[in-house]
Amino acid sequence: MRGNQNRVTAEGAPDSSRVVLVGIIGAGSALWGYLHALDRLAPRGYAQEGTICARNRERWPDILRRRPHARLVSDPAEVLESEAEVLVIVTPPDTHVELAKAALAHGKHVVVEKPLGTTPTEARNLVEFAQSRHLHLLASPFVYLSPTFRALWTRVRRGDIGDVHSGRALYGNLGSAHAAWYHTGGIGPLAELGIYNVKSLTALIGPVRAVYAAQMTALRPRAVAGRRIANPDPDVVHALIQHQSGALSSVVASHAIWTYRRTAIELYGTNGTANLLGDDWDPRAYEVWQSTAGAWEVHDSIDPTWHWSDGLRELVTALRERRAPLASLEHDLHVLDVIEAASLSANSGQAVEVTSTYDLPDLTLDDSMASYVHDHTRSPDEQQ
Amino acid sequence: MRGNQNRVTAEGAPDSSRVVLVGIIGAGSALWGYLHALDRLAPRGYAQEGTICARNRERWPDILRRRPHARLVSDPAEVLESEAEVLVIVTPPDTHVELAKAALAHGKHVVVEKPLGTTPTEARNLVEFAQSRHLHLLASPFVYLSPTFRALWTRVRRGDIGDVHSGRALYGNLGSAHAAWYHTGGIGPLAELGIYNVKSLTALIGPVRAVYAAQMTALRPRAVAGRRIANPDPDVVHALIQHQSGALSSVVASHAIWTYRRTAIELYGTNGTANLLGDDWDPRAYEVWQSTAGAWEVHDSIDPTWHWSDGLRELVTALRERRAPLASLEHDLHVLDVIEAASLSANSGQAVEVTSTYDLPDLTLDDSMASYVHDHTRSPDEQQ
Amino acid sequence: MRGNQNRVTAEGAPDSSRVVLVGIIGAGSALWGYLHALDRLAPRGYAQEGTICARNRERWPDILRRRPHARLVSDPAEVLESEAEVLVIVTPPDTHVELAKAALAHGKHVVVEKPLGTTPTEARNLVEFAQSRHLHLLASPFVYLSPTFRALWTRVRRGDIGDVHSGRALYGNLGSAHAAWYHTGGIGPLAELGIYNVKSLTALIGPVRAVYAAQMTALRPRAVAGRRIANPDPDVVHALIQHQSGALSSVVASHAIWTYRRTAIELYGTNGTANLLGDDWDPRAYEVWQSTAGAWEVHDSIDPTWHWSDGLRELVTALRERRAPLASLEHDLHVLDVIEAASLSANSGQAVEVTSTYDLPDLTLDDSMASYVHDHTRSPDEQQ
Amino acid sequence: MRGNQNRVTAEGAPDSSRVVLVGIIGAGSALWGYLHALDRLAPRGYAQEGTICARNRERWPDILRRRPHARLVSDPAEVLESEAEVLVIVTPPDTHVELAKAALAHGKHVVVEKPLGTTPTEARNLVEFAQSRHLHLLASPFVYLSPTFRALWTRVRRGDIGDVHSGRALYGNLGSAHAAWYHTGGIGPLAELGIYNVKSLTALIGPVRAVYAAQMTALRPRAVAGRRIANPDPDVVHALIQHQSGALSSVVASHAIWTYRRTAIELYGTNGTANLLGDDWDPRAYEVWQSTAGAWEVHDSIDPTWHWSDGLRELVTALRERRAPLASLEHDLHVLDVIEAASLSANSGQAVEVTSTYDLPDLTLDDSMASYVHDHTRSPDEQQ
Repeated sequence: MRGNQNRVTAEGAPDSSRVVLVGIIGAGSALWGYLHALDRLAPRGYAQEGTICARNRERWPDILRRRPHARLVSDPAEVLESEAEVLVIVTPPDTHVELAKAALAHGKHVVVEKPLGTTPTEARNLVEFAQSRHLHLLASPFVYLSPTFRALWTRVRRGDIGDVHSGRALYGNLGSAHAAWYHTGGIGPLAELGIYNVKSLTALIGPVRAVYAAQMTALRPRAVAGRRIANPDPDVVHALIQHQSGALSSVVASHAIWTYRRTAIELYGTNGTANLLGDDWDPRAYEVWQSTAGAWEVHDSIDPTWHWSDGLRELVTALRERRAPLASLEHDLHVLDVIEAASLSANSGQAVEVTSTYDLPDLTLDDSMASYVHDHTRSPDEQQ
Repeated sequence: MRGNQNRVTAEGAPDSSRVVLVGIIGAGSALWGYLHALDRLAPRGYAQEGTICARNRERWPDILRRRPHARLVSDPAEVLESEAEVLVIVTPPDTHVELAKAALAHGKHVVVEKPLGTTPTEARNLVEFAQSRHLHLLASPFVYLSPTFRALWTRVRRGDIGDVHSGRALYGNLGSAHAAWYHTGGIGPLAELGIYNVKSLTALIGPVRAVYAAQMTALRPRAVAGRRIANPDPDVVHALIQHQSGALSSVVASHAIWTYRRTAIELYGTNGTANLLGDDWDPRAYEVWQSTAGAWEVHDSIDPTWHWSDGLRELVTALRERRAPLASLEHDLHVLDVIEAASLSANSGQAVEVTSTYDLPDLTLDDSMASYVHDHTRSPDEQQ
Repeated sequence: MRGNQNRVTAEGAPDSSRVVLVGIIGAGSALWGYLHALDRLAPRGYAQEGTICARNRERWPDILRRRPHARLVSDPAEVLESEAEVLVIVTPPDTHVELAKAALAHGKHVVVEKPLGTTPTEARNLVEFAQSRHLHLLASPFVYLSPTFRALWTRVRRGDIGDVHSGRALYGNLGSAHAAWYHTGGIGPLAELGIYNVKSLTALIGPVRAVYAAQMTALRPRAVAGRRIANPDPDVVHALIQHQSGALSSVVASHAIWTYRRTAIELYGTNGTANLLGDDWDPRAYEVWQSTAGAWEVHDSIDPTWHWSDGLRELVTALRERRAPLASLEHDLHVLDVIEAASLSANSGQAVEVTSTYDLPDLTLDDSMASYVHDHTRSPDEQQ
Repeated sequence: MRGNQNRVTAEGAPDSSRVVLVGIIGAGSALWGYLHALDRLAPRGYAQEGTICARNRERWPDILRRRPHARLVSDPAEVLESEAEVLVIVTPPDTHVELAKAALAHGKHVVVEKPLGTTPTEARNLVEFAQSRHLHLLASPFVYLSPTFRALWTRVRRGDIGDVHSGRALYGNLGSAHAAWYHTGGIGPLAELGIYNVKSLTALIGPVRAVYAAQMTALRPRAVAGRRIANPDPDVVHALIQHQSGALSSVVASHAIWTYRRTAIELYGTNGTANLLGDDWDPRAYEVWQSTAGAWEVHDSIDPTWHWSDGLRELVTALRERRAPLASLEHDLHVLDVIEAASLSANSGQAVEVTSTYDLPDLTLDDSMASYVHDHTRSPDEQQ
């Protein structure tokens, strides 16, 4: 245990020469998302790729073929004890809390891929540990950081469509053909995929007071990594959410959806309607219809290169700027409460209450970020 | 009471010279929809406009301004006792059953605007009465008659997207600014609007075994016809439906929605996805994604002039062709059971079971109907 | 010759009890479009269907099957000498001028399907004749009458996108499988189809000073009405139009296009962009992007039931209201000049100048027409 | 002059350990596009960033702020004489040929940003020089390399829509607020922007035999880099292209277009229609309508992360694999001939012939590339 050398200090002058060393534990699909983030940070001099732990040595040749300079290790301890200032945890969900705690114990700031924990209880425990260590802990999904989401949030929260009474969202894919834990680990599509929608809807509409959910298994058996799973976990969840405000949301999450063409997030209010197009993890546009205007106002994505791994950029930037990252662990814990309530409801056939709540940070989008982007293959701050 | 002169006889030779006289009871918004249907049937020599009952004489000047030749009466008995062969009931929902029964008692075939009855019990009673009189009874919504819906149904039912595990649908408007019964009559948005989605989803996915629903009131107070309603009925309903097949559907219906941009009906199956665009009461296109093709196949509406009042055309045509209209009263009753279950659930906070079931008629679309339509302002059979 | 009993008199009090009798000469595809208009006017007490001349008696059974009450005649003189106040000319283009003149000579007001004449010279002659007789002459296309087009026009003309420098438009279909004159009559796709785009673009951007065009024949041979046409007329025309303002437009018209997905009309200006979606003969929406707003503002069609045969409604309404119909024969003649110039250019390989010009009527859309339409199967004035 | 050490040798075994050093000359907007390509190649061990020449030292601080490790030089000779194996030329167009020749003379393989030369003559000279030196020369635009474009090309070229008779394309932006040469250098929007459309359309439809074009100046004066240009170059060009096959294309290019919503490339054939959506420099989807299917078949982008700077990846990969890059300099020269003909035509008012032609490489897309992409934020070969 290395101690607390990275302890968050009082906010101070940005340290623009600081290069943050980033280690990674985990070598599944999400690894490549965070490496994508690193590959954008490194040329800017913001971050440097540290050691990467891939326990399973059979995966090393493939990783090295794609990244010959990768510094691979097979023991997480080697990353924990490295010089890295930030650790990214992209292992299967049931190890998130243990590894994140170990990272914090080693004085690292931590980015955890979703979900923060497999239960709200263990996640709360982790959050408290991070706070006690005065270290940053960031949990995916990072919808707060998407400028397009924030622009939508700004419009909705300032009342442009009146009081929101209904939300709708759906996200699905086919699950994993490689990782058995997707389909046997008890996590389920709401915690794996729907967590995006739940985080977005609660950011937009506010906290939840009760959830009713139903689930079923559509693809049975499943083939994962050449193995046949006769009785996979449920791969379809529908949840009906009652917000504390009285508003209602309908959410569908599934590991049995090939593809979709739907509005990602729909919000209906007493004075209009607002939509997010694309996905909340990859927004393409948002649109607002206000009764006073009587027309749809469509805004293309403010930064189409925004990536769902953006929490890493945020943490690195926050460290360089000596500020707290834009996040709310209270909100993340509430999201886990909602997901657990849905799971309990699906098993009991009864609606389940949620009692936690949270304060949201101000996600208002500074107007200067919302300028028109011509070349949507480059982020606004990479254009001249 | 005129007896049973219109009794359905054995199917025989089509009577192409027969002009069906159509009377109407009711003078609200839906009247104009059925007059639209009549105005298309009349020039073809299929039907003739009979007497129209508008009880409220204050409405007569407006009706006569728009249709100077209308033969208005203020007593329903005058329509019931007219020579009309078919009666259309477009009065407020709580009078549907009584008037439809009276029409049947007078030997008329009947088209009833949605809902068939305010409770499944009274609707069942009405259906039995029609059957005992050997007269046709058609209940809106008429999704079966939409060629675009039928093309989608044909694709889904033949297994093009595998087993359907999930459906989604939403329909909403602002309710009525004229008719107080919309907002105080206990009918609610699911019976008024969502009934379309429920009929479509059950036609596509099959019967329902349980419903959970939640509701709230978004617009309070409401102004209707210059009057302030302090405590209007709930105007937002979300329902989570479990089908007998195990599939799940999420449905939202609301009288507090200004407008929307969403996929009307989404179906997710084990081999692909299918969508209906526009509305099920006014389809613009359907699209199918099959895993074997890996691309969206998009079909524009087969007949963009198809109108939601099409039950009247169907009944008139069926009478001329001496065949039964394309309908399933069993299905209509099941739809009412689902709506009642949703209402019970919203009040109790418990999921409510549905036990009825139904046989669907074959809605397979004859390929000849599906030909390409260039001028979408004219129905395919009006093009040369 | 019956004299001039329908002469346009000084504007006076609307005659709301007047029922205008409408005769029709011609029995091709366009007949059904104008009957659609009549079937909407008749129930309102605005117009009454008169005699219809179908020269070819072989077509009578089909017409009577579809409209058993039609009063068919085979000699145009019977329509000319009927009591009809308005005549609609929907014969092949090379007879338009002769028949329209005969109708005017009989004191009828006249609606002529596109094109007004096969040459600008004969069309000018016709226009002068109508003016000398003080009778109304309306020429398709009727883009002025489309509320959605007028809303777009209002925005563009008041400068919302700055000075327009570029227009683009395309319209095409497969020509006719029934009427040989489409493909051997020398009319061509620009006069048959592109005339819509040319009228729209000149209404939006202003008069033309020169045209360059090229044409080719894509479908060779063609089968029309069971007959093989070895060398049909060119069925593809591209035209590059220079407006008097300096703006440029690119227009494509073709009888060899199966279908399309494109923006119907695009306008690029110094301060933004404006588009018409759908077709100018059937608009679905318009959208405007202004530099000051930085977002697309999308307006769904103001009246999706608007029909391209609307000139008949306009003439009937104008007669009842004792006003001039909303039209500009000068503009129609200019459109024909542009089409002739394109034809000359395609043959010579040289750009050809156009010298005529026109005053546009004020097409500003009264805001009251632009209210939100929920049920897009009914025109705004048919909704309660 | 370093000689010819990089001479293209006979194709041999791929050299998977080879890391290609890449130097860059030029520091305008396009620099960042190629750095984006480099930042994706470097972590894979394919390439390494060499020296970058930014002549104007005033730009250095900004570049170093964004890329602190950049090795900047101000004299192109330092890049020419560096160890780099590949040089990228992203200077203003009038220096492309001179610098590319110098690079070839130093034995470098070269990627040149569009246009290859300001005249076809100087570009031909450059191509011959590269061939004489047995070195690779790649010219932007790189539409051949876009998998989505290639999938469309494969469909069109194998006859899925019959014989193509018409193409349409438009591309525009607001020009440059920083580089005066955009608006005073005589290059114009067709050579700067429309070159993409011309390359795409000629790849899809075949070589051009004549061009008619017209141009105008919409934005006058212009402000560029704080300077007022009273008489900027024309910023709007419309071109009507006749292909050797007889097909016609209409192309619009402009530096006075704020934004657009249009189908990027439309192709109309005797058996159907095909479209490219998005932009040919950033395709979002392609869609095909065949008469045999009667429905649109819509394919989302095969690799939404594909970037217009992809020629650099292609050259690096080709060198590692000891093969020729996928390109046709003959085609690039023909494209310049078309652009020059358009310019001559715009000045003379006469159509101008083009006599050159070219052989296209086979762009058929291997089916294995076209697999379904779920996470469109990552390229297919970066997904597990």
